[in-house]
Amino acid sequence: MQELRIIPLPLSGDVRPGDSLVDKFLNALKRRRVSLVKGDILVVKHKIVSKAEGQLIRLDTIKASARSRAWAIRYKLDARVTELVVQQSKKIIRRKNGVLITETRHGFICANSGVDVSNVDGGEHALLLPENPDRSAANLHRALKKRLRLSIPVIISDSFGRPWREGLTEVAIGVAGMKAIHDYRKRRDPHGYLLRVTIDAVADELACAAGLLSGKLTRTPFVIIRGFHYQPGHGSSRQLLRPAALDLFR
Amino acid sequence: MQELRIIPLPLSGDVRPGDSLVDKFLNALKRRRVSLVKGDILVVKHKIVSKAEGQLIRLDTIKASARSRAWAIRYKLDARVTELVVQQSKKIIRRKNGVLITETRHGFICANSGVDVSNVDGGEHALLLPENPDRSAANLHRALKKRLRLSIPVIISDSFGRPWREGLTEVAIGVAGMKAIHDYRKRRDPHGYLLRVTIDAVADELACAAGLLSGKLTRTPFVIIRGFHYQPGHGSSRQLLRPAALDLFR
Repeated sequence: MQELRIIPLPLSGDVRPGDSLVDKFLNALKRRRVSLVKGDILVVKHKIVSKAEGQLIRLDTIKASARSRAWAIRYKLDARVTELVVQQSKKIIRRKNGVLITETRHGFICANSGVDVSNVDGGEHALLLPENPDRSAANLHRALKKRLRLSIPVIISDSFGRPWREGLTEVAIGVAGMKAIHDYRKRRDPHGYLLRVTIDAVADELACAAGLLSGKLTRTPFVIIRGFHYQPGHGSSRQLLRPAALDLFR
Repeated sequence: MQELRIIPLPLSGDVRPGDSLVDKFLNALKRRRVSLVKGDILVVKHKIVSKAEGQLIRLDTIKASARSRAWAIRYKLDARVTELVVQQSKKIIRRKNGVLITETRHGFICANSGVDVSNVDGGEHALLLPENPDRSAANLHRALKKRLRLSIPVIISDSFGRPWREGLTEVAIGVAGMKAIHDYRKRRDPHGYLLRVTIDAVADELACAAGLLSGKLTRTPFVIIRGFHYQPGHGSSRQLLRPAALDLFR
């Protein structure tokens, strides 16, 4: 069995609305003198995707409702950010200690609908999740195929908290060019014993592996993972979302 | 920034109660002609730790309670396994569709108290989690320091499900020689903006990275991660457990 390589590709300069991510990525490859090979996977932090797609909201355009203002006053928050969090959700799952755990329009369950005010210049803007991260991943996947004649799976990642365990880990919010879940339910383990339930969330594990190098304190939004035997396929981050009816925790 | 290498070390032969894991590991290194270097991290799948520590239970020694028998009949399960799951828990968190989500004696929240009947020869045994996975990690860490004169952090991993998202991901159930959580709360991001809450569950992310190579269908319980800038420290998997009082989901 072959080893994996997790290759960081730092960004030079910032990403602005309208920028081409594929150009940014190809430049980052060139600067590091890295050539992609068949089997490589690209993991991209969602923030630069959101920035390139113009998902920045000026906070002074947001008018907070009375409920958002009351919540923000109680927990010393910016009511306009609270309002945006509510607007970006389709359901509020928990509301406690100043944190809103929401189900986003996309179906992700995370803190504050993924709305981010850190890492955005000045702090007077908020950065939303991409409108449709699977589409963003598919666009990048398609552009790379055209430019490099290679089918490179693309994962767009974000850092989510989770119940019961401390700390953030990366998750895949957009997937293209590979199956997000690898399903071993009908196979036999090395003892010949039938595996009952082994569905691995490989897109999340790949996001975590990349996250070791694309932490919040670095400017490394692009990471290449080389050597992982992924299962090709259309792929979608929706494969990672458990339907509410099957979730023991809702 | 340097790349990471994730190096798989397959096991030859099985692990039996009383076997020395450090010997098994050093042999696996030798066979692959890999030498450890300063900065390397070792991730070990918990199953071989449990096997070496004799955490195998013969199912015919387990007498199921009436309640376990009723539950097992309802969902076509082995009542002795259900009984073991209950015995290994300190609290049952959810009980639905034949799955028990429990808090184990250690404080982990997972399906069926981590009791495993796959991957164990014959199927007439169940494999429990290590008695104290932090201690197991510390023992291996100490033995490696003695044999190689290198301080190699050790992470013991298991595959857990999680709320809201499909598929299993690896988590760290034992940690020694590094901080399980890296805390960036008081630092500034590349824009100079103060990061509010950025505590990364790096031990879980390292477990996930290793999990890409130590999947259930391979005999690769040892994985080396090379190149990650970890924060040295005593370390414990308890750092990853959110106190119930702070958990929005309990």
